[in-house]
Amino acid sequence: MSLQLDTAAQNLLFRDARTANTFTDEPVSDEQVQAVYDLVKYAPTAYNQQPLRIVLVRSAEGRERLVRHMNEGNRAKTAAAPLVAILAADNEFHEELPDQFPAFPQAKEVLFGERPVRERSASFNAALQVGYFILGVRAAGLAAGPMTGYNAEAIDKEFFTDGDHSVLAVVNIGKPGERAWRERGPRLAYNEVVTTV
Amino acid sequence: MSLQLDTAAQNLLFRDARTANTFTDEPVSDEQVQAVYDLVKYAPTAYNQQPLRIVLVRSAEGRERLVRHMNEGNRAKTAAAPLVAILAADNEFHEELPDQFPAFPQAKEVLFGERPVRERSASFNAALQVGYFILGVRAAGLAAGPMTGYNAEAIDKEFFTDGDHSVLAVVNIGKPGERAWRERGPRLAYNEVVTTV
Repeated sequence: MSLQLDTAAQNLLFRDARTANTFTDEPVSDEQVQAVYDLVKYAPTAYNQQPLRIVLVRSAEGRERLVRHMNEGNRAKTAAAPLVAILAADNEFHEELPDQFPAFPQAKEVLFGERPVRERSASFNAALQVGYFILGVRAAGLAAGPMTGYNAEAIDKEFFTDGDHSVLAVVNIGKPGERAWRERGPRLAYNEVVTTV
Repeated sequence: MSLQLDTAAQNLLFRDARTANTFTDEPVSDEQVQAVYDLVKYAPTAYNQQPLRIVLVRSAEGRERLVRHMNEGNRAKTAAAPLVAILAADNEFHEELPDQFPAFPQAKEVLFGERPVRERSASFNAALQVGYFILGVRAAGLAAGPMTGYNAEAIDKEFFTDGDHSVLAVVNIGKPGERAWRERGPRLAYNEVVTTV
């Protein structure tokens, strides 16, 4: 085992952490979400673009607006989780790129002037950020329950009226409850994933 | 600061870690890459799908085949890095899904029977895995230099002859060298990214 990361951190983020389907009643505070963001915001993306947008669903009305667009099997747990976060890509992220990547201020027009290119870049880089965010939730000692089973078009319309955002995941967040997860599924072996040329 | 993750781990993975553009000559062993994989393989994806494929470019001939498809500005550092990894999505990941997600063996056909649906799922979930892999490289005490500036179609043809793989990133890996990075770019503030409903 040649990792520098200490075993407790390995376990917290990867080995013991699991996707949770049930949670305790313990609330998740804005301060906790801020601490997660203030950690994971440093993880890398292409041209330092930061397309990820996060909608925290806290009100009863907001929860109802979301739950009805979730697939049947995701509704009860999304209704019951202490906190739910909608993670979306902002397809107009290039507007802020001159500030975020001052080394190449022309990138906004030269690289990302066309919407389809921008959407592909936003999807990929926001997906990286979704991965970072999930690990950040775990870094806060919380469990994440990421889901992709929902009506994406309906969520985009319901929560982003500008037509410029694409939902990538909805994540339940909290302390794991009773029977919070099923048995862990198998992972591919190293030599099924990695080849050398 | 309400994180459970210890400060050393926060720094190693997020705060001190940086995208490296130069590296020392110290080699990166297969054992190190295996340790990275054996950590990050546990991070979550939808339906436990594992579309990420990794090609380690170790031979001089392989390096040459890769470097010529990189954008001009990425060639010198890709030629010089101790190890280069091509990260790609396997768009036929559903073939192994009945083994990986035994709770719903029909997912292979019912959810992922159509190639366009499969490609979208492979892109998103392999992108999550790219994010996990970058943090895993850092967990091994190494620096990652992820790049997306290359001729993707040419790399797909050069390294994946089956037409079923899509490169997502090329990552230089090693110990950071002299002047390995530029000044860190700014990050969006919490309230520019997070809203509450």
